[in-house]
Amino acid sequence: MKRVFNFSAGPSALPLAVLEKAAGEMCNANGTGQSVMEMSHRSKDYKPIIEKTESLLRELMEIPQNYKVLFLQGGASLQFSMIPLNIASNGKKAVYIDTGVWAEKAAKEAAKFTEVDVRASSKGKAYICIPEAPPSSAEDSYYHITLNNTIVGTKWAALPDTGDVTLVSDISSCILSEPLDVSKFGILYAGAQKNLGPAGTTIVIIREDLIGRASPQTPAMLRYDIHAEEGSMYNTPPCYGIYMIGLVLEWMKNLGGIHAVAEKNQEKAGLFYRYLEDSKLFSSPVEKPFRSLMNIPFIFKEENAEKKTEMENRFVKEAAAAGLVNLAGHRLVGGMRASIYNAMPVEGVRALIQFMENFEKGVM
Amino acid sequence: MKRVFNFSAGPSALPLAVLEKAAGEMCNANGTGQSVMEMSHRSKDYKPIIEKTESLLRELMEIPQNYKVLFLQGGASLQFSMIPLNIASNGKKAVYIDTGVWAEKAAKEAAKFTEVDVRASSKGKAYICIPEAPPSSAEDSYYHITLNNTIVGTKWAALPDTGDVTLVSDISSCILSEPLDVSKFGILYAGAQKNLGPAGTTIVIIREDLIGRASPQTPAMLRYDIHAEEGSMYNTPPCYGIYMIGLVLEWMKNLGGIHAVAEKNQEKAGLFYRYLEDSKLFSSPVEKPFRSLMNIPFIFKEENAEKKTEMENRFVKEAAAAGLVNLAGHRLVGGMRASIYNAMPVEGVRALIQFMENFEKGVM
Repeated sequence: MKRVFNFSAGPSALPLAVLEKAAGEMCNANGTGQSVMEMSHRSKDYKPIIEKTESLLRELMEIPQNYKVLFLQGGASLQFSMIPLNIASNGKKAVYIDTGVWAEKAAKEAAKFTEVDVRASSKGKAYICIPEAPPSSAEDSYYHITLNNTIVGTKWAALPDTGDVTLVSDISSCILSEPLDVSKFGILYAGAQKNLGPAGTTIVIIREDLIGRASPQTPAMLRYDIHAEEGSMYNTPPCYGIYMIGLVLEWMKNLGGIHAVAEKNQEKAGLFYRYLEDSKLFSSPVEKPFRSLMNIPFIFKEENAEKKTEMENRFVKEAAAAGLVNLAGHRLVGGMRASIYNAMPVEGVRALIQFMENFEKGVM
Repeated sequence: MKRVFNFSAGPSALPLAVLEKAAGEMCNANGTGQSVMEMSHRSKDYKPIIEKTESLLRELMEIPQNYKVLFLQGGASLQFSMIPLNIASNGKKAVYIDTGVWAEKAAKEAAKFTEVDVRASSKGKAYICIPEAPPSSAEDSYYHITLNNTIVGTKWAALPDTGDVTLVSDISSCILSEPLDVSKFGILYAGAQKNLGPAGTTIVIIREDLIGRASPQTPAMLRYDIHAEEGSMYNTPPCYGIYMIGLVLEWMKNLGGIHAVAEKNQEKAGLFYRYLEDSKLFSSPVEKPFRSLMNIPFIFKEENAEKKTEMENRFVKEAAAAGLVNLAGHRLVGGMRASIYNAMPVEGVRALIQFMENFEKGVM
């Protein structure tokens, strides 16, 4: 069986050991005579599964005791609505820093429910950097950032100091990629389909004092208090996704935890960025201090637009034929992009570099 | 490997052949070198998967061309909000028929967003029947029913005639259990975790003229028009769940489609209800014309409450030890319940009856 190296931005590569374990347990998990997919979410068979996932997440992220972990549905996009619906205050401003398409979407969605102040943006610079974070004020209800920007491949080099104002962040594409001080945030949220597991589960990590502020008119499924009170079982949760996340977290723990994984991620990204620096054919469009550890866009230095597109198409096609798949850049920005999440082995990055070196030789 | 017979109300039993296929494809699906879980939802590898699921659903349910099929998240509970937010009309009443806990929840949630008229209820009769359906009027915006009631084990014997008023139904626990005339409904919705696949995917079947009525202030993820325009890919859908549903539908088609499956369901329920009729120890609490094909609650005839509870506990425990699991009734109603969805083989029902006969012999 030939596996490919999958550089998709999400859903994306999962560790082979995890997939093999899931396959082996598919028809009979833990001797229950059932698949995890078949287990009642309130059964004694399923309970240890969701509890294990939560406890591993708490351990690996060092989540403080005064934070709840919620397993929800709807992806980061539903969080774009839930955050303002749950924690915006009347007469106060919700601050958004616009660092890319997803950050912009979050702000636009929030503007349906509260006054939004897009206090800084790097849109004018095609999002190739993170803008300097403007200060917060007593009139702000919360301060929202997108810690890692999947499409353009940037990340915040340092967290903004928002003082007493609640810092909220979308960490969909960088959760568990390197250590993060959870206590600096009021809410962290992430769709699972990049570093954690299959699409369809959203992780929300929320400081307890922020729970219970939604208006009673808010749709029940969009209220953090209801999900928190019910232990993520107000209705049937995405049980199998939560199980898969547990397997991925177990795999991470066995690798040595967050520090070991971060080291590996530094190694992978380091190799690839160094190659781009040295290449005569390729380059990174992103400003150095803001380069993502997870999503690495790259472009041809070629200036003729037509020729460039032709080379991009050829590159993506030939790479796929060589078992290096999903290297096309996001349709909004073009070019190429290698997403190298936790599950991408260093061999995958080396294989990509090797392929690019050969491609370079063929072209130059 | 010993598989159990799983009578859970949901998540619930899946066909073993489907689980085995999923296990076999887990690390490399369709020769792509990827798991379906790893596929980008916008890739050429994933597209045929979601298309197959939709086309099989359309075929098996004979869904007319002027209906859209949406693959969403959040379960039936999120539909309780989405329906009024998308199709309630100002100054008109949303009619709900209260036939159980989930119907009641749907009505309560709708009352946040529109004027609700609970026009009939069988709550006073402990929900053991479906009330006669009161007529609709020109002042009604829509008419909501719960076609099969999972907890109490009732189903509508015939659809209400709502004239020009849009009929909407939760079919979570009876979708694809027997033929249903989709054209009688404006919206049908179902959580997948009973007859279709793992928890985390919601199927919505909606007549096209009902799409596009939501206020622009509605959360984006709660708008049918956005999901319809984007082909269920406004954001990342629950890709793996959609794949599993496709495998289940393929299995159904191979069995001979909806009529063959309905026949098998009639056989299974027939066997079990006949046994309950004849039993001196057990009985069905549900009025005959309204008995569900999918969820069959049963109780001890014993009148001493303490003794009854003792017998229930013993029954559920001994059944589980015999490989017949999840037979406890819903915590709100007690007693026992056998959910016998499409994936439950007739052998499972026979084994349960055999076990009950033996239990009866031991007790009487």
